[in-house]
Amino acid sequence: MTVSRYFTITSRPEGLPSPDVFSLEEMELPALGDGELHVRNLWLSVDPYMRNRMDGVKTYIEPFDLNAPLEGAALGEVVESRDERFKPGDKVRHMAGWRDEAHVSADSVERLPDLDVPLQTYLGVLGMPGMTAWTGLNTIAGLGSDDTVLVSAASGAVGSLAVQLAHQKGCRVVGTAGSDEKCDWLKSLGVSPVNHHQSAEALTKAIKAAAPQGIDVYFENVGGPMLDAGLASMNDYGRIAVCGMISRYNSASAEGPANIAMVLTKRMRMQGFIVLEHWADYQKFIEEAGPLVAAGKVEYQESVFDGLEATPEAFLSLFESGTYAGKRLVRL
Amino acid sequence: MTVSRYFTITSRPEGLPSPDVFSLEEMELPALGDGELHVRNLWLSVDPYMRNRMDGVKTYIEPFDLNAPLEGAALGEVVESRDERFKPGDKVRHMAGWRDEAHVSADSVERLPDLDVPLQTYLGVLGMPGMTAWTGLNTIAGLGSDDTVLVSAASGAVGSLAVQLAHQKGCRVVGTAGSDEKCDWLKSLGVSPVNHHQSAEALTKAIKAAAPQGIDVYFENVGGPMLDAGLASMNDYGRIAVCGMISRYNSASAEGPANIAMVLTKRMRMQGFIVLEHWADYQKFIEEAGPLVAAGKVEYQESVFDGLEATPEAFLSLFESGTYAGKRLVRL
Repeated sequence: MTVSRYFTITSRPEGLPSPDVFSLEEMELPALGDGELHVRNLWLSVDPYMRNRMDGVKTYIEPFDLNAPLEGAALGEVVESRDERFKPGDKVRHMAGWRDEAHVSADSVERLPDLDVPLQTYLGVLGMPGMTAWTGLNTIAGLGSDDTVLVSAASGAVGSLAVQLAHQKGCRVVGTAGSDEKCDWLKSLGVSPVNHHQSAEALTKAIKAAAPQGIDVYFENVGGPMLDAGLASMNDYGRIAVCGMISRYNSASAEGPANIAMVLTKRMRMQGFIVLEHWADYQKFIEEAGPLVAAGKVEYQESVFDGLEATPEAFLSLFESGTYAGKRLVRL
Repeated sequence: MTVSRYFTITSRPEGLPSPDVFSLEEMELPALGDGELHVRNLWLSVDPYMRNRMDGVKTYIEPFDLNAPLEGAALGEVVESRDERFKPGDKVRHMAGWRDEAHVSADSVERLPDLDVPLQTYLGVLGMPGMTAWTGLNTIAGLGSDDTVLVSAASGAVGSLAVQLAHQKGCRVVGTAGSDEKCDWLKSLGVSPVNHHQSAEALTKAIKAAAPQGIDVYFENVGGPMLDAGLASMNDYGRIAVCGMISRYNSASAEGPANIAMVLTKRMRMQGFIVLEHWADYQKFIEEAGPLVAAGKVEYQESVFDGLEATPEAFLSLFESGTYAGKRLVRL
């Protein structure tokens, strides 16, 4: 008999979730069914989009049910297999995160590529955050090597790969971050840093100083005044890939960009995307980013939290500016 | 010696221009140069985008100079030609509007297509407004016959052709307008009308009632609360062609759409465009819309103002909701 320990939410949070919204529960897993795998998780991912799933509203993805196991990306080892494609010891990526042990359908898991990289990179730089950066720059914004690129939240899990992929393509890159330390790190990557704790007007000036030629591609993770500044900084025919608006996830109402009419005057294209809908391109991404990561040519930061119990803390750290950096991971 | 009478602006207006910003002047035209045409104007166009040119700010087009002849689309007859491609009596379209007589470069004028339609339609339904509607729907929004379409300011010069082109393609169409009379006219065209003098919330409800299936393509002419309502009404993967934001042209500051994050959650694409940059496709537009207009299958409204002196009044009528409808024209 296998016991699975898992997190639930017991109510719908308003604004920034309080830690006591989360509850650690356990259940006995039933007998393993045909076509299922018993997976023991090694690494769990926590990501900003999960905040949206805590609201009871269907957006592009179903909301989390109350008092049921939360979901998220995870890496695990197959302990028992009732599918001929997998055997015990195989490492897989799947969505039964926020827990230690899980029964999952073999059809729903991904076998990991064969690269000489640390396992947890498949949740970060070679996982959803990395694939998100690649998709936004290439599929959505049509990045070219002549473009000047602005990435907001550029020290985050997604942003930090976006700036590096753009930089390696030969683009000039401006990145915003929330502390001097993060800005220094961006600078070491060849990125012109801008501290994003400023008014829209001050941000606009700082971006102008960092890139007097203007911005062609804007990879947007933040929203709020940052979006006003981004719109103001764009060149004609600029492309904005809207990946996230983390500044809005915890506030019920917010002002929109007062300069939205610039979409017209500068003939811009602004497009939202959800990486899961572009997963068919994962192989293309791995072919470009995998060798760079294996060769140590991509820097990535991780903030590792230890033990299943730390999962809510890891998640909430996503909404604190300045303390933690890079991909938030839970190691089991 | 030919005298040209022309309008200037004598100062930069703030908000809605006062009539006394405009000044009627006259000058003697110099001798006609090689490659030039002397054109006598028959019809002048006034258009919302001209308001932007009155600000001293370069956007996608140079601002109007103070105390110099204003510009705009016009139809005229060649009186004298110093270019072998044109002869006296030819009808041409050109940009030396806001005046009665002009010398223009033969390279800058367009010969009109040979269709059995009233001359002034080349400033309206077969001119820039019609081409704008066609470009926004097709080139920018990628309209398909299964789409449900929302057009704001649907009784205007651009909007009224947008709704009809979409309707003739088989689309279900919702159009907003500013009076019961205009809404009745939209209804007679097979369009579900919504009065746009409502809050964003009420507009959203009214659009939902008119199109419970949601909106796939939104042709945006208005901005302000209308844009909030449009964003709220869109389906996933909706496309927004931003053609104008007339509600903002006369206000220095305005709130942006509070629900801008829907661009992300619904994976929308929002793109601004300027029809002049798509003029290479004019022939494609004429092939589709020309025969429809010649056969009387497209209804269009005109508000005709008589005499050069009425040009400022015609222009200012664009910003009054409810009194005039359709294309504003000045007949000389």
